[in-house]
Amino acid sequence: MEPVTNLPKHRVVIIGGGFGGLYAAQNLNRADIDVTLIDKRNFHLFQPLLYQVATGSLSPSDISAPLRSILSRQKNAKVLMEEAIDIDPETQHVKTNQGLIPYDSLIVATGVSHHYFGNDQWKDTAPGLKTVEDAIEMRRRIFMAFEAAEKETDPEKRRALLTFVVVGGGPTGVELAGAIAELANNTLKHDFRSIDTTEARILLIEGLDRVLPPYPAELSAKAAESLTKLGVTVLTKTKVTQIEGETLKIEYNDQCETISAKTILWAAGVKASGVGRVISERTGASLDRVGRVMVNSDLSVPNHPNVFIIGDLAHCADPEGKPYPGVAPVAMQEGKYVARLIQARLQGRSLSAFSYKDFGSLAVIGQNAAVANLGGIHLSGFIAWFIWIVAHIYFLIEFNNKLVVMIHWTWSYITRGRGARLITNTTSPPVETPIARSLQEEPLKV
Amino acid sequence: MEPVTNLPKHRVVIIGGGFGGLYAAQNLNRADIDVTLIDKRNFHLFQPLLYQVATGSLSPSDISAPLRSILSRQKNAKVLMEEAIDIDPETQHVKTNQGLIPYDSLIVATGVSHHYFGNDQWKDTAPGLKTVEDAIEMRRRIFMAFEAAEKETDPEKRRALLTFVVVGGGPTGVELAGAIAELANNTLKHDFRSIDTTEARILLIEGLDRVLPPYPAELSAKAAESLTKLGVTVLTKTKVTQIEGETLKIEYNDQCETISAKTILWAAGVKASGVGRVISERTGASLDRVGRVMVNSDLSVPNHPNVFIIGDLAHCADPEGKPYPGVAPVAMQEGKYVARLIQARLQGRSLSAFSYKDFGSLAVIGQNAAVANLGGIHLSGFIAWFIWIVAHIYFLIEFNNKLVVMIHWTWSYITRGRGARLITNTTSPPVETPIARSLQEEPLKV
Repeated sequence: MEPVTNLPKHRVVIIGGGFGGLYAAQNLNRADIDVTLIDKRNFHLFQPLLYQVATGSLSPSDISAPLRSILSRQKNAKVLMEEAIDIDPETQHVKTNQGLIPYDSLIVATGVSHHYFGNDQWKDTAPGLKTVEDAIEMRRRIFMAFEAAEKETDPEKRRALLTFVVVGGGPTGVELAGAIAELANNTLKHDFRSIDTTEARILLIEGLDRVLPPYPAELSAKAAESLTKLGVTVLTKTKVTQIEGETLKIEYNDQCETISAKTILWAAGVKASGVGRVISERTGASLDRVGRVMVNSDLSVPNHPNVFIIGDLAHCADPEGKPYPGVAPVAMQEGKYVARLIQARLQGRSLSAFSYKDFGSLAVIGQNAAVANLGGIHLSGFIAWFIWIVAHIYFLIEFNNKLVVMIHWTWSYITRGRGARLITNTTSPPVETPIARSLQEEPLKV
Repeated sequence: MEPVTNLPKHRVVIIGGGFGGLYAAQNLNRADIDVTLIDKRNFHLFQPLLYQVATGSLSPSDISAPLRSILSRQKNAKVLMEEAIDIDPETQHVKTNQGLIPYDSLIVATGVSHHYFGNDQWKDTAPGLKTVEDAIEMRRRIFMAFEAAEKETDPEKRRALLTFVVVGGGPTGVELAGAIAELANNTLKHDFRSIDTTEARILLIEGLDRVLPPYPAELSAKAAESLTKLGVTVLTKTKVTQIEGETLKIEYNDQCETISAKTILWAAGVKASGVGRVISERTGASLDRVGRVMVNSDLSVPNHPNVFIIGDLAHCADPEGKPYPGVAPVAMQEGKYVARLIQARLQGRSLSAFSYKDFGSLAVIGQNAAVANLGGIHLSGFIAWFIWIVAHIYFLIEFNNKLVVMIHWTWSYITRGRGARLITNTTSPPVETPIARSLQEEPLKV
């Protein structure tokens, strides 16, 4: 692949180092092209396992890999730790918080964030799970709730402290609820002296009529059954109407109920990252209901053949007009497709439209419990769980991480322990301040 | 060990779940005693490896273990996640941020924090390394400096960004400087495109005439030699006289020099935690120069035979009057001693004075490079390094952690990679805000 002319190289700029952006960059590795990957973080995050950080099984770095180290040996690629804030398709530049970056082809893969359906005030009470910081905050809340319950003597308050509500019955919600149930019933069982952690209530709330709505009904039923067996109360056809402090109002069949819960976790919806709106303003592209950019069948933006949207930010429909789901395999295949398309075009060739090869979907509920829909074959229980484990280890990008995660999992499987239960980044003052204060104040009265 | 009477059980309260406190608790496991361990954190931290978190080799949870899970099966022990703020030796109570806890015997093991020798304003510019949060902040600064250097075009500013100053030539300073040198010269070597990370300057500043002052002079020389070989500039007999912004003033032989450095790390001194002052005020005990409590030869506070100080907070002298060093083995042996002493006393026996069995000391400089002083046998190079590895893995408390750390180390040894290089907890706003703003502001000008 020697350069055939002395013309300047074709410059591909990729915004976002998730599954889509990273696969696009990696699939350009043999091209005589300049690749620039822009991300505001310095690492790629294996998001499907983020719930395991939130529930104390894995460390953030177990499911992350530095972008620079992934692309270290790919000499045609460079990484910029910057934040994209605008694009100009006329002059072909990306504006970041640090400057302007020219491109010949642009790939935007900035993903999605939480969606509170117009109730953004719920954000602080019911945090979502998208970033490492989100996961650490969830972990802090979950484990602090048990700590506070251990000290609480009022039975009603204690009950609220031991009530965990997960809003949203998609894969993330199911995985979170299952993991919290395992925490309460196994991992923490012998760790406390005043409370019985197995008395914790874990509620999973879903608005539709079943959990895991995109799965076949049979697997949704299996998942609900496994969750119930783990001790999760599954509430379907149930809507959250209000969240205020530790009080949650839900509605079921026009009946209202109020639940007191210290820990409320949001897994109910996503909306496209703000970059979608920028694309729309600058290119005239339409956005769908959740802010994803409507793209052509080759993932380019209408009338802008050199601007591509991939991953969760793209609304790309299958031949029946149904949009592809926001999952890692779609993003990865889209990244690879666009990388191939750009190279084909440079060689004067074209490619047929993008189409997603669905190898199946997997959701884990707990130890030995998962559901899998593999090309029409429906599996559940241990076999689905085993496939889930193998698939996830296979896709963890760096070998190092794969091995460490495998060891963690093997160990947890045997001991049902969770090592990554650190409560960090609390805002409590250092020990010296209150002591100094108490000395000045008054002698201790007993 | 059946209870011989129906009298209430002897209550031992331990403040602090570090090496001292934890070993005290564990060595009371067979006693018919109520043990309460109070810590403001929910985990035990293996502090000697904290520098590996700060330099991206290990995750916080690799070197931490939940206190509850360590003591889970010890039925006579309970853990309180509270912050001790005062004690009353008359009524025998500990006051925490949550209430009063009565004791019959009290063990205080709250350790030390950084000491800036009267220059507390240096704290923000030159952070120290005692907590998980400290390590994550150091990690963020170190890796952000390389990221910023990659973008900087001004050669002088770039040089400041690639200058790392470690203040203090004790074990922590030596380990930090060595690890940063390995980062720059090996791990990151191929990761950047505009900078040559091997051009980074790493300065280690020590006030005395050699690094590792408590070690035999021969080993100090070996350590300095290894550091120099790794690319660290070792400045001994050098004092830091001022730190302001990115400017550091140092003094050597009455000569002053000014150094521009973005990253300044503090490993120069420790002072006792504030609890020491409380103990002193309440019991009349004397404090030494750095605030440690002067204790009797059985580690009790003068005139308070049931109040013990152990670990870094205790000033306990050997028969020649030299205080034992603030290292984990001393704390562990003191914890075990006090546990035995309390049990002996309950059985009407007594114990001879505490004496520290020094099995040696080890400091690591880098891969295959360490120094060891094992009972008069001085070792350096690969063999000392190997002993260091084995000793540290042996002491990592939970088997799980041992295994994971071993895998991490084996992997890093082969690849010279560091996986835990996440830059987290930055204060940068989420991506949506600036985009929205830029759209309202003005069209992008190129």
